Amino acid sequence: MAQIIFLTGGARSGKSRLAEELATRRGTPLGYLATGSAGDGEMAERIARHRERRGDAWTTIEEPLALAESLAAHDGRFAAILVDCVTLWLSNLLFSLDDPARVLKEVELLTRTFSSLRTPLIIVSNEVGMGIVPENRLARQFRDLAGEANERIAAAADEVYVTFSGLPLRLK
Amino acid sequence: MAQIIFLTGGARSGKSRLAEELATRRGTPLGYLATGSAGDGEMAERIARHRERRGDAWTTIEEPLALAESLAAHDGRFAAILVDCVTLWLSNLLFSLDDPARVLKEVELLTRTFSSLRTPLIIVSNEVGMGIVPENRLARQFRDLAGEANERIAAAADEVYVTFSGLPLRLK
Amino acid sequence: MAQIIFLTGGARSGKSRLAEELATRRGTPLGYLATGSAGDGEMAERIARHRERRGDAWTTIEEPLALAESLAAHDGRFAAILVDCVTLWLSNLLFSLDDPARVLKEVELLTRTFSSLRTPLIIVSNEVGMGIVPENRLARQFRDLAGEANERIAAAADEVYVTFSGLPLRLK
Repeated sequence: MAQIIFLTGGARSGKSRLAEELATRRGTPLGYLATGSAGDGEMAERIARHRERRGDAWTTIEEPLALAESLAAHDGRFAAILVDCVTLWLSNLLFSLDDPARVLKEVELLTRTFSSLRTPLIIVSNEVGMGIVPENRLARQFRDLAGEANERIAAAADEVYVTFSGLPLRLK
Repeated sequence: MAQIIFLTGGARSGKSRLAEELATRRGTPLGYLATGSAGDGEMAERIARHRERRGDAWTTIEEPLALAESLAAHDGRFAAILVDCVTLWLSNLLFSLDDPARVLKEVELLTRTFSSLRTPLIIVSNEVGMGIVPENRLARQFRDLAGEANERIAAAADEVYVTFSGLPLRLK
Repeated sequence: MAQIIFLTGGARSGKSRLAEELATRRGTPLGYLATGSAGDGEMAERIARHRERRGDAWTTIEEPLALAESLAAHDGRFAAILVDCVTLWLSNLLFSLDDPARVLKEVELLTRTFSSLRTPLIIVSNEVGMGIVPENRLARQFRDLAGEANERIAAAADEVYVTFSGLPLRLK
């Protein structure tokens, strides 16, 4: 049974850099499962910057929705897979399924997949619930969904970290 | 002198579940002091979900404003009382008193009450100050108030935890 | 080479009070480098409150932009200098330079200055990246900038803390 590491933290808190370090320790080749697509300008710039920082050992897999299926399909082909990131995946699912309860079923499918994987996962997420309550109802709904999903994935993970200013604190 | 445990964290970060676990260890019967009211739809749904999760050992007390008085009135009647949550209470007080300085006097009244209570308290609050500065002046005012109140209650508590993704870190 | 202590946390999370305590342990006289100006009403009130709490051992230096130069100019004149705060400084720089990449060059200039200073620094910043993604593009840009800057300053500091409800957790 593969090791599952879950990293959460604020925007630009050093999660992805730490995740890359943790993955690199596993050897090569490495998989980078991007849940965002390069369609939007800010995301394209972010993916390009990450790609430049990572280098040749990495293969990028783009999968906005079927995360559990994609991880199962690529199992055994990498020394580790970095999943970046859970909140974008949830956002894609919520846009596609339009129902937080159905999105949480996908999260459950993901955590159930963990026990059958051989490839270690490093899963990156974001903390989005420590600001003022958003006025926008959809933003509140997303915030609640992300909190629930993070809690469930953290419960199923072997190691959990939260990062602040580039520095990790171990939670589990 | 009763033990005071203070739990803070982001939205849906597992605070309430952890608080219920900590309360349950104290024995029965247990008090659940809800500072929110079921008037609004989202809150009604939240209260119903909590009630379902908790079960028969719990008695719900609804008190939106006079928290110190209500805790004193119910003192000695429960193995522990869970207060859920501080930020809703502050919001009710700010709406009612329209002055952060007067709200902080109520917080002071609460922390002064701690030393005379026999029933242990588990007090849940929210971190609301780790997002971008809100454009709305009232939101900034509330954020400052919640930060001040959390700091004062944490200073008066015996144990303090912050939760991320359902996992607690002990602060005190 | 002087010791650099970096403190981050949410709004009203007790960072400034902790920073003042850490500075006071260094002896007197003490410098308070304010990156905000008293021009705006909320800031004036905040500076006045801080000044009242601090007392006579402190000299206030107001410097909204040229932080590295100001620290070099005042080096050796105080037992410690408290810099309050990084996010206001970044905000001033972004308003003045209108380019996050140029602002990050100023951050680099600051961290390079650390090794040549004799006066210990206690540097206060804010976590602004743990709320929901802001709808406003400028707010997202600032949030990313603050995250990057905090990570770089923390990497160059000797000790790093994050505060919640007035209580610090050591990160480094």
